[in-house]
This record gives sequence, structure tokens and C-alpha cells, in this order.
Amino acid sequence: MSPSLIAVDWGTSSLRGARLDDDGAVLEERAFPRGILTVPAGEFPAVFDELFGDWISAPEALCLIAGMAGSKQGWVEAPYCACPAGAEELATKLAWVDPGRIAIVPGMSCERDGVPDVMRGEETQVFGALRLLGIDRGTVVLPGTHSKWVRVEAGRIHDFTTAMTGEFYALLRQHSILARTLPADDGPFHGDAFDAGVAHAMRSPGLLQSAFSVRTLALFGRVPQSQQPSYLSGLVIGEELRERALHADAHVVVVGAAVLTLRYERALASLGVRADTVGAQAGWRGLRDIARTIRT
Amino acid sequence: MSPSLIAVDWGTSSLRGARLDDDGAVLEERAFPRGILTVPAGEFPAVFDELFGDWISAPEALCLIAGMAGSKQGWVEAPYCACPAGAEELATKLAWVDPGRIAIVPGMSCERDGVPDVMRGEETQVFGALRLLGIDRGTVVLPGTHSKWVRVEAGRIHDFTTAMTGEFYALLRQHSILARTLPADDGPFHGDAFDAGVAHAMRSPGLLQSAFSVRTLALFGRVPQSQQPSYLSGLVIGEELRERALHADAHVVVVGAAVLTLRYERALASLGVRADTVGAQAGWRGLRDIARTIRT
Repeated sequence: MSPSLIAVDWGTSSLRGARLDDDGAVLEERAFPRGILTVPAGEFPAVFDELFGDWISAPEALCLIAGMAGSKQGWVEAPYCACPAGAEELATKLAWVDPGRIAIVPGMSCERDGVPDVMRGEETQVFGALRLLGIDRGTVVLPGTHSKWVRVEAGRIHDFTTAMTGEFYALLRQHSILARTLPADDGPFHGDAFDAGVAHAMRSPGLLQSAFSVRTLALFGRVPQSQQPSYLSGLVIGEELRERALHADAHVVVVGAAVLTLRYERALASLGVRADTVGAQAGWRGLRDIARTIRT
Repeated sequence: MSPSLIAVDWGTSSLRGARLDDDGAVLEERAFPRGILTVPAGEFPAVFDELFGDWISAPEALCLIAGMAGSKQGWVEAPYCACPAGAEELATKLAWVDPGRIAIVPGMSCERDGVPDVMRGEETQVFGALRLLGIDRGTVVLPGTHSKWVRVEAGRIHDFTTAMTGEFYALLRQHSILARTLPADDGPFHGDAFDAGVAHAMRSPGLLQSAFSVRTLALFGRVPQSQQPSYLSGLVIGEELRERALHADAHVVVVGAAVLTLRYERALASLGVRADTVGAQAGWRGLRDIARTIRT
């Protein structure tokens, strides 16, 4: 039996792990609501041992951890790897917490016009997603609270941009004047209302103006209350795409859970943009490729 | 002695009134924290009588009220006056609560691409501001929680747009991840940080992307914590101006209180846009002109 790889995605609010065989097949998966915000400083080894100790005790087991566990508030700080960089560079900059056995993959940074941008965990998913698709260049989006748009050329990440789309949705949904006319629960997804939100965002110059449409369409009874969450979702995702200025013949790789990627695929299709989607296995594949680099 | 005009601005969160002579000079002013949200349905006459009863009891006194008092949640609903319209049209559509003595000025509505926009109170300030400046056309901005950009031609409002700038500032300031690195209090204004925020917004494609700079500049120690509120203020005001796509030789009238108009003047100047500023007297002047229309 070949040695196990323990692949871990330790984010801000969740912790997931998988035990992989040498071909990258998932033998077992675990998920816990133990994001780094729930772990007091100094207790990362104990939490990790409690949840994954049986896996890591196997002979020659190697554990690679991606995500916010490498941030200042995490287990050990893994300094950002500057763009451009590929998976091989990440492998040379691992932050070992247990040399030869447990390491944290560094996040990446880039800079544009004197303003930095950062990510932790998404870089690993990007490399894994492209490998799964058998390509080494393209535009990859990882939707979420802070969506990442990543440009890859010849297998290396050249630059990326963060869009605070999911967070803006939550702010407007919960804390803004728009919350007054929105229903308490999001309810089922309404495709037509979502499409209308995307379309309005695309013809607007920006979110400060387009967001007010949620209120006025409600005031004038043009969008039924039950459909307003879908309209707002379309509006912020449409704004994210507008800010990217995608061409109609562009091609985008969407990485993430289906609940979000389905919406992005739908919005991209309405712009004539082709999309390939890769699910959660992207992260495991990325960690496996980094593991191969250091084992050879 | 000519008959008094009682001019009232009854908004969501505040109530202001002025007694004017026939030349429009302010004889006396009053302000109360009694916005319409503090007034239970049915109690508007009693609150008004308590706070302005002595003024309105004068012989031939006329009271005109602008603002959210004319909304569904206000004293009496004054249906929106559709664009384009001038002060004369507003005067013919007053909602009288005490015929011949107390009336509410209607708000205005417009529509673009099937999406309505609305304002209540700002229309009166726009007409007053242009009259005070002796002009009958131009672009007028009224900064605030929901900024209004109003285009006037030949003395009539042709269309307008709402930008939720002040509300987005508050949402990001108080409820977003950015709040984690911002100081508890805004503290003094820092011009350089404000200018940097304006500049970053102007070269960004939109707010979903540019907002993350507040976090990364903090993470990398590029903007000292005490200056971050000014940077964020510049970022959202800069985004508001970016969405307007103003030309460098444009001319804008800014209407409002100095605490905000100074920032808009500064941001506009950095784009090469000329600005004239009019203060709170714009609303009183607008109401006086409507009063003249109905008294002749």
C-alpha cells in the first residue's frame, strides 16, 4: 500500500479533510464546524490531533493543509507567495508544523497600482481544477463571501482579484434599508427574478446606483416580495461579472459548491460566456499535486 | 406685514422648520429629532401643532412641507410627480392637509430601463439651489445616505439617479469584515487618505473589487488605522463619482451640509470638475418659490 495523503482545507468558518490514495482517489472525508475562528491560539495541534490523529498516525502519512490555517490568526503563519507562481513554488514554501509530516500551503499575493490582494486556499483549488480539466491556462472564478478571479498562464497564477460579492449580498440582505421590504427567509430560487437582477447590473454603471432598484421595484410592486432575494442575488453576481468586463466569447472555469456555481453558470450563460465547473474535489487534487512535487 | 410662510423639511429621521418673510429671509428656525419614523400613524397633526402651532396660527400663514412626510408612512401620501417637471407642476399637485393653510409637496419619480427611481424633499432643494445660483439648468448632487444626482434643463427636472453611498459607507464601516481593522471612532479627517480612496475607486471597475483594498492596505500596514475611515470615505465617494462618468470640464452643483459637501468638493476637484455649493437655505428657497406660485 502506498503512503496516505491527508488533504485538509482549514478555512475561517469550516474545516474539511480527506484521506487520499496515491492515485488521488478519496478514501474517506470528514467535515467539522471548526474554522480557525473557533480555535484559540496555541490549540491548533490539539484540535488537529483530536480530529485527524488516527489518519496522520499511519506510516509515512503526509498531511498538507490549505487555507486560513496559514494566516496570522491560524496555526502557523505561512508567508504569502508572490505572483506569478505555480504549484511547484508553493511546494518549496510550505510552512512545516511537524517536519516531514504536516505542512501548511502558503497563500498568494499580488499587487496592482500599489494595492495588494491576497488569497489563502483558493490557489490550491485553482491548480487542482485546471489539472482536473487538463488545461494549464484560463480564467478561474471561485465564488463566495470574497470571490476570487484568478488568471493562469502556463500553469502559473499571474494575478487575481477579490470581489466582496457574498459579503455585499449579506450586508444588503440583513442590514440595509433593502431588508425592510425583503422577506425574512430567502425561500426558493426564482430564475426570472435572478436574471432580471443580472440584466439590471449589467446595464448599470455600478452597485451604488443599481442597488436602489431593489427598493424601488419593491415600492412599485414590480418584483413580488418572495422573488426579491433572487433579484438581489442576481444583482450582486451580475455586478461582479460587469466589473470583470468579460467578452461574450470568453471562457471561465467556475470552482465551488453547486449551490453557488449553478447561479454563476446561469449568469455567465446570459452573457454568452462559456463555463466549466469543478466541485470540491479541486482542492484535494491541488494538494495531491503539491504532495507529489515534494515526494519525488 | 406680509403673510408668513412656514417652510418645513420633514424627513425620515429629522424635522426642521423655518418662518420666512415675503422676501425669503429666515426670521426663525427650529429643528427637532422627530423624523417620521418617530411619529405613530394618526399623530402627525398633533406633533405638528405642538411644534409649530404658534407659527401657523398667524393670520394668512401658509405652511409647505417637503420630504418623507408625504410618503406612505407619513402624514398624508402625496403621489410622486413624474419627470420631467418644474416647481410649477409641484405647486399644482400639493397634498393639502388643511386646505389653504398646510400642504405637502409631492416627491418626484422617474424611470429608466423599466426601473423606477424616487425622491422626496430633494426636488424642492434642487429648485431652490438653482434659483439661489441664478441658473435654470445643470447637474445637481445632494449627498447623503441615499445621494441624488439630478439633471435640470430649462428649470425642469428631467431625470435623476439614487446612489446609496452613505448607506454603503455605514454598512462597510459597521457590519463588514473591514470593520475588524477600522478604529472604533472615525476620528479626524485625513485628506491624503481620502484622496487615495478616491483615486483607487476611480481606477477600479467597481465597488465589489475596490472595497477589498481597505482590508489589504490595512493588512500590509499601508494605511495607518487612524486614516482608514477617511480612506473608506474617499473610496465610496470616489465610486459614486466614477459611476457618474463625469467629464473633467463638467460643472456640478452640490447641495447639503458642509460636513459632506466639503468632501464632495474635494473629490470633484481631484477630477478637475468645478463645483458650486449651496447649503440648507436651498430647501427654504425652494418652498418659498412654490408658495409664490400658489399665492399669485
